Amino acid sequence: MHHFNKVDIDKMSKIYRLNLINSITGYKSANLIVTKTNEKINNVAVFSSVIHLGSNPPLIGFILRPTSVPRHTYKNIHNYRYFTLNQICESQIKSAHQTSAKYPENISEFSKTNLEYEFKSQLEVPFVKYSPIQIGCSYQNEYHIKENDTILIIGKIESIFINKSLLLDDGWVKLENGKVVAINGLDGYALPKLIERLSYARP
Amino acid sequence: MHHFNKVDIDKMSKIYRLNLINSITGYKSANLIVTKTNEKINNVAVFSSVIHLGSNPPLIGFILRPTSVPRHTYKNIHNYRYFTLNQICESQIKSAHQTSAKYPENISEFSKTNLEYEFKSQLEVPFVKYSPIQIGCSYQNEYHIKENDTILIIGKIESIFINKSLLLDDGWVKLENGKVVAINGLDGYALPKLIERLSYARP
Repeated sequence: MHHFNKVDIDKMSKIYRLNLINSITGYKSANLIVTKTNEKINNVAVFSSVIHLGSNPPLIGFILRPTSVPRHTYKNIHNYRYFTLNQICESQIKSAHQTSAKYPENISEFSKTNLEYEFKSQLEVPFVKYSPIQIGCSYQNEYHIKENDTILIIGKIESIFINKSLLLDDGWVKLENGKVVAINGLDGYALPKLIERLSYARP
Repeated sequence: MHHFNKVDIDKMSKIYRLNLINSITGYKSANLIVTKTNEKINNVAVFSSVIHLGSNPPLIGFILRPTSVPRHTYKNIHNYRYFTLNQICESQIKSAHQTSAKYPENISEFSKTNLEYEFKSQLEVPFVKYSPIQIGCSYQNEYHIKENDTILIIGKIESIFINKSLLLDDGWVKLENGKVVAINGLDGYALPKLIERLSYARP
């Protein structure tokens, strides 16, 4: 096995470190987050940091880097206090990745990619059309992570749209049936295949 | 598409909600976290909440539920202020899942599963043998998430061991080459296959 000690990590070039450190914690979720500006422009950006925080209440979290892209997301979430999460499927990866480009705030990424938005249930913030799982979230709180000046945003799940072919009788969602992807590092998109569901573990 | 509104979500049975809400944020990383008790027992537990926080400094985070399993991890991290992250590969999923059973604190999950530990580089906390990526982390800080009484632990990456077949020239790690798995919901283990790496996006 190759070993990187503390000194090796400190001495790495920026790109090498970005690639390595972004990869080694394992596969990451692949979400498009949609927000709305005060000028009613719908912004969409790819995020690999969305996590499950708890199911009751139903909470999610994600990390924002205020000093870099996508800073618009932060401002928009504060304005509307509502955003949507949309799972990325295989056919959407190129458009989803393109949303990471640094567009000006008044440009909707929907106008620069093949992604389409759709409004549902009288919500003011739209969802990404053809995403197999669409989640409406209200802003709850944020925590400043002082160790690297990032922000953990906490959202509450208020509304869920899910393609019926993914939803099993016990509420478990077979992501594979929607060709939902996972992210490897900064720029790798992977398609997982279920090995198996394991039963509840007892001593 | 099936729609769950706020009332539907509130009225769900506990198990249905657990399955659904744990699944819809997408694939999750699959890590074994090893800690050490004061009695020098090595504990290991599966976590699906490990996230990349930043690459410079190299930081990771994960969520602990202090009121449920695995509470031992919290106490051990406070005692030793060091822990290891180990990526789970396909051949380890049954043993990894079994670590989620509620064993007494004085029982090492290594003694109850086929997982083996190995010491490296004079570190006091061991790694999981045969894990294709092994990461030594120092405890940095924690944040109490008051919305659901969980804790975000922040760790700094101090040492990385990685199977050479996964490591590419630019530092990017091809997780597929180590048969690293991803987690779907509470109990589903999936094996991702790379679709492609995309180039840096420009407007």
